[in-house]
Amino acid sequence: MIKVTVLYPNAPNAKFDMKYYVTRHLPMVRDKCAPECRSIAAEGGLAGGEPGSQAPYIAVGHLTFDSMAAFQKAFGPNATEILADIPNYTNTQPIIQISEIAL
Amino acid sequence: MIKVTVLYPNAPNAKFDMKYYVTRHLPMVRDKCAPECRSIAAEGGLAGGEPGSQAPYIAVGHLTFDSMAAFQKAFGPNATEILADIPNYTNTQPIIQISEIAL
Repeated sequence: MIKVTVLYPNAPNAKFDMKYYVTRHLPMVRDKCAPECRSIAAEGGLAGGEPGSQAPYIAVGHLTFDSMAAFQKAFGPNATEILADIPNYTNTQPIIQISEIAL
Repeated sequence: MIKVTVLYPNAPNAKFDMKYYVTRHLPMVRDKCAPECRSIAAEGGLAGGEPGSQAPYIAVGHLTFDSMAAFQKAFGPNATEILADIPNYTNTQPIIQISEIAL
């Protein structure tokens, strides 16, 4: 199983509409990537590791797929439309991490 | 519910022993932070978002707790011992993200 993690960097002027992200964007991605997309999840940054520090990421999203091939098959044809929705909930430029779930 | 995410940055010389991490380190953290620690999880970086790119993080670990207070209560007294174990599985300096689970 692989996890596609989308990390939205924090910054003093960073904006992120979590309500839109969890009720509109992620469900849209899941529906467009069905049935390959197995799950969606999201978190909002609260803090960093040092006392009083900001979270490095204002928000993080996760999608799981059975394999890298399943992700590419599902995401590729919908990439343009999915990416075009990003300005509707944030002014940040996300970083993508594709991982193998180990535990 | 909050998630404490530990991100291990990738680099050409980065080393990470995933077997040690999932069989020794994370179970040790969970046991020391019991019963407040609700779950442990881990992923190994495969790729970034651009074709052919490296994963930004060589590995990622996750711990969940009911609240920030529960995390601090459980982690604080064990922080020194937990952090001292890091060189046993990696030569990288992790970044900490504490998040509220939103979905």
